[in-house]
Amino acid sequence: MKKLIDFYELTMAYTDFKNGKKDEICYFDVYFRKNLDNGGYNIVGGISEIIEYINNLKFSEEDIEYLKSTKQFDNDFLKYLRDFKFTGDIYAIPDGTAVFAGEPIITVRAKSIEAQILETDLLNRFNHASMITTKTTRIVNQAKGRGVMEFGARRAHGGDSACIGAKYAYIGGAIGTSCYETGYRYKVPLLGTMAHSHIMKYDDEYQAFLAYAKTYPNNCILLIDTIDTLRSGLMNAIKVSKDYLEPNGYRLKGVRLDSGDLAYLSKCVREILDKNGMNDCQICVSNSLDEYIIKDLLEQGAPIDSFGVGENLITSKSCPVFGGVYKLVATENNGEIIPKIKISENVEKITNPTYKKVYRFYDKKTLMALADLVALASEEIPKDEITIFDEKEPWKQTTLKNYFVKELQVPIYKDGVQIYKEPTIEEVRDKVKSELNSLWEEIKRLNNPHKYYVDLSKELFNLKQDMLYAKRNNELEKI
Amino acid sequence: MKKLIDFYELTMAYTDFKNGKKDEICYFDVYFRKNLDNGGYNIVGGISEIIEYINNLKFSEEDIEYLKSTKQFDNDFLKYLRDFKFTGDIYAIPDGTAVFAGEPIITVRAKSIEAQILETDLLNRFNHASMITTKTTRIVNQAKGRGVMEFGARRAHGGDSACIGAKYAYIGGAIGTSCYETGYRYKVPLLGTMAHSHIMKYDDEYQAFLAYAKTYPNNCILLIDTIDTLRSGLMNAIKVSKDYLEPNGYRLKGVRLDSGDLAYLSKCVREILDKNGMNDCQICVSNSLDEYIIKDLLEQGAPIDSFGVGENLITSKSCPVFGGVYKLVATENNGEIIPKIKISENVEKITNPTYKKVYRFYDKKTLMALADLVALASEEIPKDEITIFDEKEPWKQTTLKNYFVKELQVPIYKDGVQIYKEPTIEEVRDKVKSELNSLWEEIKRLNNPHKYYVDLSKELFNLKQDMLYAKRNNELEKI
Repeated sequence: MKKLIDFYELTMAYTDFKNGKKDEICYFDVYFRKNLDNGGYNIVGGISEIIEYINNLKFSEEDIEYLKSTKQFDNDFLKYLRDFKFTGDIYAIPDGTAVFAGEPIITVRAKSIEAQILETDLLNRFNHASMITTKTTRIVNQAKGRGVMEFGARRAHGGDSACIGAKYAYIGGAIGTSCYETGYRYKVPLLGTMAHSHIMKYDDEYQAFLAYAKTYPNNCILLIDTIDTLRSGLMNAIKVSKDYLEPNGYRLKGVRLDSGDLAYLSKCVREILDKNGMNDCQICVSNSLDEYIIKDLLEQGAPIDSFGVGENLITSKSCPVFGGVYKLVATENNGEIIPKIKISENVEKITNPTYKKVYRFYDKKTLMALADLVALASEEIPKDEITIFDEKEPWKQTTLKNYFVKELQVPIYKDGVQIYKEPTIEEVRDKVKSELNSLWEEIKRLNNPHKYYVDLSKELFNLKQDMLYAKRNNELEKI
Repeated sequence: MKKLIDFYELTMAYTDFKNGKKDEICYFDVYFRKNLDNGGYNIVGGISEIIEYINNLKFSEEDIEYLKSTKQFDNDFLKYLRDFKFTGDIYAIPDGTAVFAGEPIITVRAKSIEAQILETDLLNRFNHASMITTKTTRIVNQAKGRGVMEFGARRAHGGDSACIGAKYAYIGGAIGTSCYETGYRYKVPLLGTMAHSHIMKYDDEYQAFLAYAKTYPNNCILLIDTIDTLRSGLMNAIKVSKDYLEPNGYRLKGVRLDSGDLAYLSKCVREILDKNGMNDCQICVSNSLDEYIIKDLLEQGAPIDSFGVGENLITSKSCPVFGGVYKLVATENNGEIIPKIKISENVEKITNPTYKKVYRFYDKKTLMALADLVALASEEIPKDEITIFDEKEPWKQTTLKNYFVKELQVPIYKDGVQIYKEPTIEEVRDKVKSELNSLWEEIKRLNNPHKYYVDLSKELFNLKQDMLYAKRNNELEKI
């Protein structure tokens, strides 16, 4: 199994090992600082992938041999790695949940070295899956009920990017994928039409269409832009329908446009199909689509039934980095939690200290999400009324009433044992839908969306402020 | 082994299978339409990955069972897939070669179904590796001899994106990677410094630095921005050097900055280090770097020795899609080549027909690349003088003299047997350097680079024009 471990995790681990720190309990939070595409929300993905990683994580004899060859570690440490096993606790907000910048999505509580070694692979899986899930919801939102098909494997960043990406595209609301491997592994519906090469291989377009129609009379979608969309492709598609499909009791399922002006062409195609009694023949389009183009096409009244989306989804082209980070927030000393904070030269890189929980407040009547609160793990959250405030501008206060509260993180591992029962892909896909339903439309707007409240509890706010002042002064005093 | 196959490749293959076309010989070209980041060149990557794929490609019993469950194929076809093996020929421009839009980089000549089934995985591997190699050269070019370290695994799109991406980053000129798996698999040098968590885990910054220095006295690079770069981090780093490293005969190898203004801070840090007799202590920086920021930092005189580059390299953030396509260019009929062309509604999507070769002309004296010519495979290329012309504006002509010519594609497979001896990673890395040396600086400029000539031979140009007029008319006549 591939192990994404940054080499410094091993050198830091070795330093801890040599300095009596290997069993010191650490708390690390995974969170992000910005929503994808400057959108109003993100959706959690990758928890299942992280579980797969942790359940299989070990150092093989070949790993140990290679590490020995680097001459950076002694035999005791290599023996430790040979026996390595994750024995800590993990809490996480489940796959498919809507989340916001600054919230701890995953919290790892483990011995120093164990927590350190998880960092890179855990982040990689979380970042990739969350990016694709979120991106897909943005596209699906704009398609307004029309099908979005994931077609991006050829432009993805390697095999996992395609195969696991397509899985999370389905979870994010795509109706299926062209990627065989994703169908095979995860039973995600497989979709597809045909390539231009199919048409070019035959003596003419009509023969190419006819061959396909005879092979798949029940599921025949013809690509009509190889020569001339309206004058050749569409005419031949209608001819095949009239000559072969209809006389044999079948219907042409659809035509696909892959070039030209899709708004103009789809309107012409729709009109001609309808005139030929083919109102049930769907129009599927592709060609570097994304959420913005889909929005524009539909606003111009393009009669499109489904969208094939490739590179812009699978690479999240407009925002190909989902910036999840993994930060130390506390250690333990004889069972007592010691909060930790990172100050940094950039204010936005300052961390929220200590072991925390995240709560979401819902309106009792509308069931819509009102705000999230990040609080000390030990805090009690009031059941009836709470005043929350903005961390940056504490005078901006809101009092919530008539709410119910949900704690977002759930236990995934306890003492290295998986205690979380993973939902099925279909269950996560449904969860994405219900989560999006719990967010106001203003938050789902494509451009300049409303900012959902994510506030710190008073106790956490005070702790952070105290630490910011104290930490710097303490360290500087020592110089 | 993962197989990226778009489902339509299987339904088209089945259509060919049912229509007597499975053994028809087809020629497919891989090429791209635009250089990455609107740059002046691209570098080929992924040929080795493609070889690995083809050498291992087969359908397992589980694949066959799954395909059966889709109810889209009959038993004869499934039997065919069970015995599937690539038996065709492949020509390719080797990894590490500079290439330009419109040139056939890879040409597959194979039976219809075999050629079709390769499409997606071949493109995925070519696109990903070429993107990372090219992007890395852009960054390395701007670093002007300073080391570029690949640090992006946590933001990569899944495991392959990180692990194979880091391999091609090294090939593109990075001096190493943080990604353990890439070191383990490909023996790429492993690099790294430390995380903020290391410092936060200790009682204070000094103790954290000291622990690391004692563990790695020979290779100690300290991250100095956790609390306050100049007032705390740098002071503690110097103290550890004076208290521990220097008295024991070691030198502090470097300090790393990961936040704040890197130009300002690096200048301050350099000055203070030098005042303390630490002229040999290097300054390494990171924090969302890319080729543009590196260029600006160095133009402002930042005394930086090496750059850690993460997300912007491994996702090619500014241009995360490398648009290689796979297009049918010819078939064979009793050994005779039948050229094929795709017209499309978008002019830039029109293909160059038939089986072709690519030639590069070099100046005999300077050894610099002058122009590339795409010609019919059967053409003779003149050895002494040739007039080339622009396809779009044929009146723009240039006569080349005093050149030598190199054919760029080499045979990789013959009748399904690999006949190409793969170069080592180090050899490809050296090739990238020598290829870049053969390109004028104007072509390597970051913004608005000079456009390198890639012209069609007169014969190919004429064939293409004839086919464009004829194809459309022929097809439309039949309607």
